[in-house]
Amino acid sequence: MGADHVRRLARSVAGARVVAVADPDRARGEAAAAGIEGVRVHADALAALAEHGVGAVLVASPDHAHEEALLAALARGLPVLCEKPLAADARAALRVVEAEARGGRRLIQVGFMRRYDTEYRGLKALLDSGSIGRPLMLHCRHRNVSSPPHFTSAMLISSSVSHEIDAARWLLGDEVTAVTVLRPRPSAAAPAGLQDPQLVLFETAGGALVDVEIFVNCGFGYEVTCEAVGERGSARIGDEPAMVVRTAGRALQDIAQDYVVRFADAYDREVREWVAGVREGRVAGPSAWDGYAAAAVAEAGVRALADGARVAVDLAERPALYR
Amino acid sequence: MGADHVRRLARSVAGARVVAVADPDRARGEAAAAGIEGVRVHADALAALAEHGVGAVLVASPDHAHEEALLAALARGLPVLCEKPLAADARAALRVVEAEARGGRRLIQVGFMRRYDTEYRGLKALLDSGSIGRPLMLHCRHRNVSSPPHFTSAMLISSSVSHEIDAARWLLGDEVTAVTVLRPRPSAAAPAGLQDPQLVLFETAGGALVDVEIFVNCGFGYEVTCEAVGERGSARIGDEPAMVVRTAGRALQDIAQDYVVRFADAYDREVREWVAGVREGRVAGPSAWDGYAAAAVAEAGVRALADGARVAVDLAERPALYR
Amino acid sequence: MGADHVRRLARSVAGARVVAVADPDRARGEAAAAGIEGVRVHADALAALAEHGVGAVLVASPDHAHEEALLAALARGLPVLCEKPLAADARAALRVVEAEARGGRRLIQVGFMRRYDTEYRGLKALLDSGSIGRPLMLHCRHRNVSSPPHFTSAMLISSSVSHEIDAARWLLGDEVTAVTVLRPRPSAAAPAGLQDPQLVLFETAGGALVDVEIFVNCGFGYEVTCEAVGERGSARIGDEPAMVVRTAGRALQDIAQDYVVRFADAYDREVREWVAGVREGRVAGPSAWDGYAAAAVAEAGVRALADGARVAVDLAERPALYR
Amino acid sequence: MGADHVRRLARSVAGARVVAVADPDRARGEAAAAGIEGVRVHADALAALAEHGVGAVLVASPDHAHEEALLAALARGLPVLCEKPLAADARAALRVVEAEARGGRRLIQVGFMRRYDTEYRGLKALLDSGSIGRPLMLHCRHRNVSSPPHFTSAMLISSSVSHEIDAARWLLGDEVTAVTVLRPRPSAAAPAGLQDPQLVLFETAGGALVDVEIFVNCGFGYEVTCEAVGERGSARIGDEPAMVVRTAGRALQDIAQDYVVRFADAYDREVREWVAGVREGRVAGPSAWDGYAAAAVAEAGVRALADGARVAVDLAERPALYR
Repeated sequence: MGADHVRRLARSVAGARVVAVADPDRARGEAAAAGIEGVRVHADALAALAEHGVGAVLVASPDHAHEEALLAALARGLPVLCEKPLAADARAALRVVEAEARGGRRLIQVGFMRRYDTEYRGLKALLDSGSIGRPLMLHCRHRNVSSPPHFTSAMLISSSVSHEIDAARWLLGDEVTAVTVLRPRPSAAAPAGLQDPQLVLFETAGGALVDVEIFVNCGFGYEVTCEAVGERGSARIGDEPAMVVRTAGRALQDIAQDYVVRFADAYDREVREWVAGVREGRVAGPSAWDGYAAAAVAEAGVRALADGARVAVDLAERPALYR
Repeated sequence: MGADHVRRLARSVAGARVVAVADPDRARGEAAAAGIEGVRVHADALAALAEHGVGAVLVASPDHAHEEALLAALARGLPVLCEKPLAADARAALRVVEAEARGGRRLIQVGFMRRYDTEYRGLKALLDSGSIGRPLMLHCRHRNVSSPPHFTSAMLISSSVSHEIDAARWLLGDEVTAVTVLRPRPSAAAPAGLQDPQLVLFETAGGALVDVEIFVNCGFGYEVTCEAVGERGSARIGDEPAMVVRTAGRALQDIAQDYVVRFADAYDREVREWVAGVREGRVAGPSAWDGYAAAAVAEAGVRALADGARVAVDLAERPALYR
Repeated sequence: MGADHVRRLARSVAGARVVAVADPDRARGEAAAAGIEGVRVHADALAALAEHGVGAVLVASPDHAHEEALLAALARGLPVLCEKPLAADARAALRVVEAEARGGRRLIQVGFMRRYDTEYRGLKALLDSGSIGRPLMLHCRHRNVSSPPHFTSAMLISSSVSHEIDAARWLLGDEVTAVTVLRPRPSAAAPAGLQDPQLVLFETAGGALVDVEIFVNCGFGYEVTCEAVGERGSARIGDEPAMVVRTAGRALQDIAQDYVVRFADAYDREVREWVAGVREGRVAGPSAWDGYAAAAVAEAGVRALADGARVAVDLAERPALYR
Repeated sequence: MGADHVRRLARSVAGARVVAVADPDRARGEAAAAGIEGVRVHADALAALAEHGVGAVLVASPDHAHEEALLAALARGLPVLCEKPLAADARAALRVVEAEARGGRRLIQVGFMRRYDTEYRGLKALLDSGSIGRPLMLHCRHRNVSSPPHFTSAMLISSSVSHEIDAARWLLGDEVTAVTVLRPRPSAAAPAGLQDPQLVLFETAGGALVDVEIFVNCGFGYEVTCEAVGERGSARIGDEPAMVVRTAGRALQDIAQDYVVRFADAYDREVREWVAGVREGRVAGPSAWDGYAAAAVAEAGVRALADGARVAVDLAERPALYR
């Protein structure tokens, strides 16, 4: 992901120049930086941050390394685009929120790229327009062909469903207040011991209900859909476009196999809009508070998965900066 | 519904002849029988049952009148097609089951007409074929334009979702063991006091999970969809066919406004196959046990709606007749 | 087809009783009549027509036998539903038209069953409503899995495209004035010598244009679609509904394999409405004139296929009865 | 279009730098160049070509100015991406072809951007794979909401259908040998005197048939679809993805209003791949020959429109460079 962002900044985002790359694995850092004129490679993130000419930071390191990098960037007053999650856990995320709030201005944007997807934006605009009335429910499907090694049952929520947590909060303009996780029998196609699929249910302060099927070994494709049900209508996104082939008694459409195809444009737009904003002194995307809230909800979800019961979400008070 | 079935039997089912019609409201009974040669009209159902030439009975009376008519038909050894529900409540339904079981042969078929719908049958065949692996989840939507007067929050489950209860039991070949009902804020378009929509969740003995959105004042149309998620694939039915009109910047498709359009063929096929079976001495459709099980699950659902908690379903032992 | 209609009249159309069946192959006639109470079987159509109790006639004999049966029915004042084509050629069809016109009242209906298909009716209603403006073009596809033995290049037009000829005349309310046939290279999957597919182009008196792809060895399914292009919008019918199955990287939908599935309801409705009309003394469906016009256009098409040039359609004057 | 390409080269294509901009309207040239560091603005194209540091040229001037710019670029050995058409007419296009052929190496790429569209590429790959057999027909629709002022009947072919001419040649790997144009009555929504819509028919050397509905005042949206019919199957592209909204009895999808939305990615990819190729010394896209062939076919089409008859296409001999 880091190398991908380096390539994106260097080759397809106007107005950006990659000055420094940091990777504890120096060879990997060198590889990512190959062919970029004038870039310096560091093993240490803080050293890279201190490089002359650094005007903004993109953090795509492992989760546990986010907090230190973010606090350092805040200390230097540097805008940051931080891949989700904001930090290793909700407490760490809250420390980042508090640090930014103390500084009094928004510098951090969290990489919830669905907010930059054309279809999600269309759905958000529709809901905001009021034309289908107040939203009452969201039905979400999030499916992957297969899960990477070492993926745990908790990661279905903390790593995968966290996208839906942010999307739901954003689409509904509402905070999640409780989580319940239902566990059907695991698929025989899932690795032994992995609770896959799960049905994750969110209740919001405004009384909306969100159900998310997360199924990371569905076998057939990458599929992310969302249906919003309002008081006067419904709207569904995520049914992929595709060539329809008719042959041998069937009409066929290929299904995307991974998120790179489905959300490629969203990643590009995210980074492009972030760079354009930074150059004009604006930070407008998902905030550190959004990163913290998603982490807090995900933690409640992981507890709900373990307990088999409804778990209330206990959010800290929202600092004025994020209101 | 009764008059509709009289018309269907008299005019469009081969091999059936309407001999007697019963309705406490005699004028309504006469109206339903108008134009049918040789039919007798009764105010009393039992008198109609006793008419000479009655070889089978179709019960479409109010729920509370089902039990008496069914027991009388069983006593006379008459095959019955009984509109759902089997009886006024699960206890009454169990009495009917026990009476039929004592008789030792199946005479009763319950009017769960979705089992006769082409799309549902296609989905059942697909699941039974094993080609998408074992089913893990069903996602169901059941929406009506608006609810009739006097429709209560409990009736969303006992009257509407009962169709999904039977469909899920049949599709999965599995019993429901627990129900949870989630209550988003009611739609402003629903009558005051009606908990509409609801999200009803069923767990099955085999570990499958079924979620049902029931929304009886959705405003835009009659919509019944079901997506089955298996270990190797998914299948979705209920996206209505329709002419696509492109005009004024939009592609439009009309949505069916009521179940008569959506399930007209299923009702016809149900009655046609029932009559054909009766003439050959077979009763093959949804059984009294299916009627009882649906009633028991629905009652657990109504309690779950009231309590806000997960309610276990406590089924009687299944008589050998239904195994 | 004849046996199919006998079964339909006997078993699923209210108000009809099959009194006599005629088939030169007596055994086949007996087979079709099997199980129908009181029916008489004849080898001779005119003898069947003369049976006591015959109040209406359904003609599904070979094309060359239509004229004699129709003229006999007209002579007796019997309403007739005649399978398309009206007669063996346009001249014979015109003789039937003239005989009916001399009689001064409509007795004949031609079996263009697409007019009874729900989707075609929806398209007709849309065009008549004016909501997409005046129709300018129709794009039609007519595909079969494979052609029966002895199917000739001319029959692609006279037997298959004749459905589109009638549908176009009816949808547009307009006569066809010229035909051009374009011949792409024949498919390797078509029998040797068969010009399959063809692109058949019709011009109408009102200036509309109709293109029809006829491809009777397309290999993958039975597919009939029609897109009407109007001054303010377009409308497309014929994209079949179906369960969507996602598995192994693809979304799949089955395609109907023959017209029995696609137009079963249309055939039923055609016969049902014809019987209901006959009982009330009405004949309202496609007229003998429609049968003649379709024949005349098809003959021009067959000439255009042979000549490779545009052929004008020369219709007789329309008798007052059909205006 | 020129300004759009300047912006694309300057802001979103890696490896490109805009050195010089030419526009006879100096103010417009300055506007296009605004904000680009180190760029020089010229009124004269040849002066811009001669600027120090120019390594490749993108031509987006009016059609009549193409030839001079292309010949100048060829003389300097500069790679060129030239917006379609290649030149003002087929004869001028042939002069360019001959000049490039004399030079002995490909320097010119013509801006047929559909070849860079994901869906068209998918269709091309499918056809090349042979999985639907040899292609027999292409059915194309090309619709615009409304035509710009001064758009003539001939321009429906030379400006709009020229995209389908190139796409058909490329998809089929085949030359067009004859053109016929059918003229339905013009839409009341089209400007007086404009023959809109038209049905344009192409025959190819290999015996395939291509029909194109061109309708530039369809009123409802920008729609480009293509269905390829092969010996064993068909494939359709261009049905736009979109959010499905259900409200007030209808399912709705928005339709794109112009080509900028539909082909934005194709334009980006075209320029990106061209720049990447130029940097590696390759010119791989649509050739000058493709530009000439499209012009020759379009000219035959314009004659066919005027004459109302089939017009054969008379192509020059293809130089070895393009084989």
